[in-house]
Amino acid sequence: MMTKLIKNGTIVTATDIYEADLLIQDGKIAVIGRNLDESGAEVIDATGCYVFPGGIDPHTHLDMPFGGTVTKDDFESGTIAAAFGGTTTIIDFCLTNKGEPLKKAIETWHNKATGKAVIDYGFHLMISEITDDVLEELPKVIEEEGITSFKVFMAYKDVFQADDGTLYRTLVAAKELGALVMVHAENGDVIDYLTKKALEDGHTDPIYHALTRPPELEGEATGRACQLTELAGSQLYVVHVSCAQAVEKIAEARNKGLNVWGETCPQYLVLDQSYLEKPNFEGAKYVWSPPLREKWHQEVLWNALKNGQLQTLGSDQCSFDFKGQKELGRGDFTKIPNGGPIIEDRVSILFSEGVKKGRITLNQFVDIVSTRIAKLFGLFPKKGTIAVGADADLVIFDPTVERVISAETHHMAVDYNPFEGMKVTGEPVSVLCRGEFVVRDKQFVGKPGYGQYVKRAKYGALMADQDVVKMS
Amino acid sequence: MMTKLIKNGTIVTATDIYEADLLIQDGKIAVIGRNLDESGAEVIDATGCYVFPGGIDPHTHLDMPFGGTVTKDDFESGTIAAAFGGTTTIIDFCLTNKGEPLKKAIETWHNKATGKAVIDYGFHLMISEITDDVLEELPKVIEEEGITSFKVFMAYKDVFQADDGTLYRTLVAAKELGALVMVHAENGDVIDYLTKKALEDGHTDPIYHALTRPPELEGEATGRACQLTELAGSQLYVVHVSCAQAVEKIAEARNKGLNVWGETCPQYLVLDQSYLEKPNFEGAKYVWSPPLREKWHQEVLWNALKNGQLQTLGSDQCSFDFKGQKELGRGDFTKIPNGGPIIEDRVSILFSEGVKKGRITLNQFVDIVSTRIAKLFGLFPKKGTIAVGADADLVIFDPTVERVISAETHHMAVDYNPFEGMKVTGEPVSVLCRGEFVVRDKQFVGKPGYGQYVKRAKYGALMADQDVVKMS
Amino acid sequence: MMTKLIKNGTIVTATDIYEADLLIQDGKIAVIGRNLDESGAEVIDATGCYVFPGGIDPHTHLDMPFGGTVTKDDFESGTIAAAFGGTTTIIDFCLTNKGEPLKKAIETWHNKATGKAVIDYGFHLMISEITDDVLEELPKVIEEEGITSFKVFMAYKDVFQADDGTLYRTLVAAKELGALVMVHAENGDVIDYLTKKALEDGHTDPIYHALTRPPELEGEATGRACQLTELAGSQLYVVHVSCAQAVEKIAEARNKGLNVWGETCPQYLVLDQSYLEKPNFEGAKYVWSPPLREKWHQEVLWNALKNGQLQTLGSDQCSFDFKGQKELGRGDFTKIPNGGPIIEDRVSILFSEGVKKGRITLNQFVDIVSTRIAKLFGLFPKKGTIAVGADADLVIFDPTVERVISAETHHMAVDYNPFEGMKVTGEPVSVLCRGEFVVRDKQFVGKPGYGQYVKRAKYGALMADQDVVKMS
Amino acid sequence: MMTKLIKNGTIVTATDIYEADLLIQDGKIAVIGRNLDESGAEVIDATGCYVFPGGIDPHTHLDMPFGGTVTKDDFESGTIAAAFGGTTTIIDFCLTNKGEPLKKAIETWHNKATGKAVIDYGFHLMISEITDDVLEELPKVIEEEGITSFKVFMAYKDVFQADDGTLYRTLVAAKELGALVMVHAENGDVIDYLTKKALEDGHTDPIYHALTRPPELEGEATGRACQLTELAGSQLYVVHVSCAQAVEKIAEARNKGLNVWGETCPQYLVLDQSYLEKPNFEGAKYVWSPPLREKWHQEVLWNALKNGQLQTLGSDQCSFDFKGQKELGRGDFTKIPNGGPIIEDRVSILFSEGVKKGRITLNQFVDIVSTRIAKLFGLFPKKGTIAVGADADLVIFDPTVERVISAETHHMAVDYNPFEGMKVTGEPVSVLCRGEFVVRDKQFVGKPGYGQYVKRAKYGALMADQDVVKMS
Repeated sequence: MMTKLIKNGTIVTATDIYEADLLIQDGKIAVIGRNLDESGAEVIDATGCYVFPGGIDPHTHLDMPFGGTVTKDDFESGTIAAAFGGTTTIIDFCLTNKGEPLKKAIETWHNKATGKAVIDYGFHLMISEITDDVLEELPKVIEEEGITSFKVFMAYKDVFQADDGTLYRTLVAAKELGALVMVHAENGDVIDYLTKKALEDGHTDPIYHALTRPPELEGEATGRACQLTELAGSQLYVVHVSCAQAVEKIAEARNKGLNVWGETCPQYLVLDQSYLEKPNFEGAKYVWSPPLREKWHQEVLWNALKNGQLQTLGSDQCSFDFKGQKELGRGDFTKIPNGGPIIEDRVSILFSEGVKKGRITLNQFVDIVSTRIAKLFGLFPKKGTIAVGADADLVIFDPTVERVISAETHHMAVDYNPFEGMKVTGEPVSVLCRGEFVVRDKQFVGKPGYGQYVKRAKYGALMADQDVVKMS
Repeated sequence: MMTKLIKNGTIVTATDIYEADLLIQDGKIAVIGRNLDESGAEVIDATGCYVFPGGIDPHTHLDMPFGGTVTKDDFESGTIAAAFGGTTTIIDFCLTNKGEPLKKAIETWHNKATGKAVIDYGFHLMISEITDDVLEELPKVIEEEGITSFKVFMAYKDVFQADDGTLYRTLVAAKELGALVMVHAENGDVIDYLTKKALEDGHTDPIYHALTRPPELEGEATGRACQLTELAGSQLYVVHVSCAQAVEKIAEARNKGLNVWGETCPQYLVLDQSYLEKPNFEGAKYVWSPPLREKWHQEVLWNALKNGQLQTLGSDQCSFDFKGQKELGRGDFTKIPNGGPIIEDRVSILFSEGVKKGRITLNQFVDIVSTRIAKLFGLFPKKGTIAVGADADLVIFDPTVERVISAETHHMAVDYNPFEGMKVTGEPVSVLCRGEFVVRDKQFVGKPGYGQYVKRAKYGALMADQDVVKMS
Repeated sequence: MMTKLIKNGTIVTATDIYEADLLIQDGKIAVIGRNLDESGAEVIDATGCYVFPGGIDPHTHLDMPFGGTVTKDDFESGTIAAAFGGTTTIIDFCLTNKGEPLKKAIETWHNKATGKAVIDYGFHLMISEITDDVLEELPKVIEEEGITSFKVFMAYKDVFQADDGTLYRTLVAAKELGALVMVHAENGDVIDYLTKKALEDGHTDPIYHALTRPPELEGEATGRACQLTELAGSQLYVVHVSCAQAVEKIAEARNKGLNVWGETCPQYLVLDQSYLEKPNFEGAKYVWSPPLREKWHQEVLWNALKNGQLQTLGSDQCSFDFKGQKELGRGDFTKIPNGGPIIEDRVSILFSEGVKKGRITLNQFVDIVSTRIAKLFGLFPKKGTIAVGADADLVIFDPTVERVISAETHHMAVDYNPFEGMKVTGEPVSVLCRGEFVVRDKQFVGKPGYGQYVKRAKYGALMADQDVVKMS
Repeated sequence: MMTKLIKNGTIVTATDIYEADLLIQDGKIAVIGRNLDESGAEVIDATGCYVFPGGIDPHTHLDMPFGGTVTKDDFESGTIAAAFGGTTTIIDFCLTNKGEPLKKAIETWHNKATGKAVIDYGFHLMISEITDDVLEELPKVIEEEGITSFKVFMAYKDVFQADDGTLYRTLVAAKELGALVMVHAENGDVIDYLTKKALEDGHTDPIYHALTRPPELEGEATGRACQLTELAGSQLYVVHVSCAQAVEKIAEARNKGLNVWGETCPQYLVLDQSYLEKPNFEGAKYVWSPPLREKWHQEVLWNALKNGQLQTLGSDQCSFDFKGQKELGRGDFTKIPNGGPIIEDRVSILFSEGVKKGRITLNQFVDIVSTRIAKLFGLFPKKGTIAVGADADLVIFDPTVERVISAETHHMAVDYNPFEGMKVTGEPVSVLCRGEFVVRDKQFVGKPGYGQYVKRAKYGALMADQDVVKMS
């Protein structure tokens, strides 16, 4: 395999920023230095650009059935868009069905990805019930499949929702097995009542999606999950934190010394509840769960990223066309498929709104979109950093270019973009996964099937055996 | 200058851990890679060792007059001991006198260090008053001397203590000028009363040093400083945090999004108040301000380092002999010189008690003893990391050796060690400063005067101009 | 009806303490003054005694089926014991069954009480489900039956437990209708798992009752109920608060201005978890839900009564014989009937441990055992105070007598007393209900059936129409 | 002395509300009952009125020198106005001077009041320093003068301000002696800087009074005082709480079980910071310390009165004419005498805005303006309630009359009223002090000199000896 030499870039990691050349061999970072010998290497000029580790998106739903339809982006279009956005690894949620072997669900998910993904990928496993069969299968899931994170839903009553006993048992099992429990924290029981009540009262517009899922219910469920985590002595990762109430609970838990982590998403950082009131049913484009919040929550989320109460950024990619899919909810907001196309803009929005606007540092940016995620989910040090021996998952990023986000130019398979018209500064120019270009000079040059499934290490591997953590 | 090649070590930074060779040229890190060409380089074998960035001690008092005596360690013995302990840069506190030009105080401090220091050093500036003269001089202190951190004492009534108005004005000035305000946070007024009362009541033993400085008074002052920082919109660094009450206030401030940071010290992590009750006046060896606390505070401090409510570790090096110096306080605990010899064991204790016991990760360890300090105090990226272009300030550290801390073997100039008899795992084998060995194979090979004074960048330089931060 | 004149006592209310005579006419307090004319009145000498309003026990379970057995005390023995203890009104919980009209359940409860009660009584209504039928019936329950408080269980999975949707709807309904929602706040789902797990692991002793219901689960559920109350804009009364974690949540809610109230019980104030470890299965005598806690919680509860985070004291009377009933749980702690005989000692314990030991004032004592309860549950000003026009529900209490609590002397129908051997100071000498003696000179002189059912006013009646609140 | 019989009123205490007649003999309440015998008594008809205990104003500054001038209202005009407003006892602040015997200061204050006051009065003692002389004199102040509350200022640098050591020693002394420490909680050091800075920057308008005393500085000082109280194990009363930040600190302290109490004032409940921006220097009328706050703080204060985080209402009466006095501050806001005329409207505003608007209950109203104050400051049970044996300090209050507050009709000696034009519901019709009318049918019928000095009981007398508290 030919070597590549990236020259003249400014290398950025979660800790460092420096000018150096990078030599890539066998898909890995081999040498970092100034004025490295170019002989025998393909030289890529990164003058004026940052070179940072490929983004890792810890929260995607590709090719996922939901609400009677299926997300528009599959592992091909979804990972192509991710690559354009500077992401080189995703972790997708493998749904399970009660009574069905976990193995079968995982196979289904492998089948969705195999031959399609253009970047690397792993899976989280949804836990919908804890039975003897499930308990017996979980160790194999971890050992054989390298799936070391389990997702529990506290919302979506009668669909995904697990009761508190199941959440608690999952926490206990995860502690024993070395897995990280992820929760969707909203009080599904009360939301169920509020949505039914709203419909009864004739409130069918998209804005009622937000009004029937108030932030108090996210705060409540977040606090509950933290409390159960404390009791179980386990570890918790709260996905898609949208509001001050939930941040407060996570901060409380961390102040007690608990192993609790929080993720937010770009949409909560820059969009707000007023978008759901757009006319002509366009509000449906902005339907997420949890919903967009009043604008003042944004500053709380930014501060939490800055001071470490929240640690990561996921996309919660879950895309549906406005036409034909979001429209299913005309006349009944509960039928609007939840979610949106975010996978492509996640990294750029955090850079433009976070770094450029002085809210976070450049190192924090890398940590939030890549390194911390790699560490929490067992991908580090193979992924999530630029260091000798790591996979050459790299983004060459021009921090000065100004551009406008638009569905006309994005690479996701959907007919709208929630950030339509938003100006951002900075853009990935080229993106490499394991040393191969997936995007080069803003053109797709990858191929479906190149992406590999990644088995992940257990939670706490980095904690427990510090001095034996070495790359193979 | 000859190049050096450190081979076969495991390189550790605040983010990374990987096996690679390090090529050093002109005192800086030039190339990092596997199997680097050895030709023309002095090869140092680091097999089985970690190689991490030299520790930075943000809190030392060398050659300092205090309580009618002078600290035993000066810039020579102090920096030699620091080097043995894996520290390659210190920031010492330059005391000022009311009515005297700052320039003069700084000159005095330069004179103490010049020709003596074996590693690099910078100065913090104590602020005892804010007058028009002081305000006029401060910008020069920053621009010309590169002193970008100011220390204010809320304790030591009638000696160092500044009133709240002075603290507030310092915070306002620091915000405008780009400096970081450091506070010694204890309520000096109440302590003054409590100590006088104790003496009146005939309580003269060392334990009364602790009993007259209860943790509530540290918590109170810490909260006060945070509140003034919020009002001033400025930045704060709380030195030597010793107790839960203070951690709570810092956590509250950070949860609000404030730029508040906290430092603790090894003594608070592993020693406790009961040491002050040692017989034969030996309790005097354990007199610090703030004092050692009840044992339960230790877990709070460790958790705060783990979850980011505290960020750094200083030594508060301030050494006095037991004989002749500490003994000044026989019969009157208020005459015991405050402080102890910690500069040498700071890094090792955090490694042994923190990393080895699973309380923090190896990356956090590096961040806490070096990287975060470099970033907060304007030394980064020149110091505080292992990256191409950075100063080759390096520690080659054997993580497996077991040893016992003792005054008999330490290199500080004092006649006791507060950690006497404590078993630790891990020891610096060799230490380099700007590419030159100061300690090699556990032998001192440096020379007084090698150490250079370091001008530091302004606070927030890393925040404000992300994309222009580059090494010269 | 002959008038009665209570002379020479010291009258105590939730606000006042003064020496005066009390003239009772037609079962009500007619005149209060010094040296009142004795002519035509039966004179009762209360020299050396306090005269305070009859206690109101807001939390009793008499003649209640539970766990395959029935509480030992019915409305006759239970109210006789209550009267001996200084209580003149109780509010008992009327259980309902899903699918059954509320009316039927209430009739059942009336039948239990009629002809038996020796003091007055009212009912709370348990809400096990919210259906259209229930919603239709609730206004009648309030208007016709004067039942203005609804109980929801967050624990006892598959028995009483309601889900969060039901709790929320009850809160919304209560707000509209003017009722107070009471919750048993423990996380039933997790407890269900923990108990099953304990049994699987062979842990069958009474102490496992406590260990499988940790205080974190009470704190969690309390916080959840408070959060739902905030969202609903409704009012909440948390029954039998046992631990610091729950007090903290109630305090937080009250600090936000919410209408949240908390009750504790004598057992949590003076007994602790270690009692469950008594040998020979005697631990079973101390099985309550929530369970007794570690001793340190007691101080938190006392402080909360003192400073108003908690407001009332209930008995949670729910008595079972040790022999034959508690013993059902030998070999399986989950089969131990929960609850104990407390109705008789509630008032005396608060006086002896609270007032006599300086933890609360005498006025607070009256407020906690009587007045506040009367106000919260719509009995005021008819009951709960000593004021002209109020029912002459009175306790003549000797504050100096010392005695020992014992099953041998108590009047409850059970074979043990959880406070066996405890010394208390103070004892009711005589007790009147609506002007008639029920207990006179420590002898029972009442008669079954004398007690009347009391319809209660709506929650907030005192708040909403201040200037029209007058006694009929 | 002729007896009086108040008939047909609705009697209201901190606990009760009922219809009854009140018989007054020898200046005390003798009998309470229905249809009392009228023979030999002067009958006063209170039909349609409330009869509640006379208000107690715990916070007045009459005839006080301040800022080079003297408050306009002295003990004559001030107490007349108080009586019109429904207040029958005041506690005024006796200022002390450093180095001067306390005895002398108290004499000065007696001289101000004697022969002038039309209602009863007591004194608080300001503590400006703690010397051996002061410590020696304090027990006499308590025993001989019945002055059982000490005031410490944390603001007014170089005027009244005491340092933290003095505050702490006062707390310790108060605990030993049985006194209640009152604090003016604002950080005077920082305010001193901010005001000087504002003037330097040419900011001279009244609004800068508020802008240089931000709520953060009140919150900080309140928290500091609470922390010192905890350490001293003493008791604290925070005067004139104006903002959310201070309420939060008091709530925290009370949640810990501390004996901490808080007072707010009418001006903070209904006026806000925008009043300071009134044109033509009229903003000067609204200059208090602490200053009026942004409007959102009002809801926090009301909630705190409702839920018990704050307990009392003082007037902080400190009146200056607009013309000639407030005007001293034209061109320099620091020269505006602080304070305003509130003594007359305190009770009515709390009734109209609190009770009538459903924010607090009628019983809470009585507690807040009278009963709780009597209990905290050792006036109870002689004053602060309507009970047999208590002083007949009574207000006959028409709760339905609507009127407009105005300087044209008020009885204070100043030329403006800060509530000018405000509509209130309810008005005192007649006011009695020790059984004699001071105001009758809205006409002044009292006489200067009638008011008596009241010696007050020690703090905690009600707590410590519950069963011996009896009226003489």
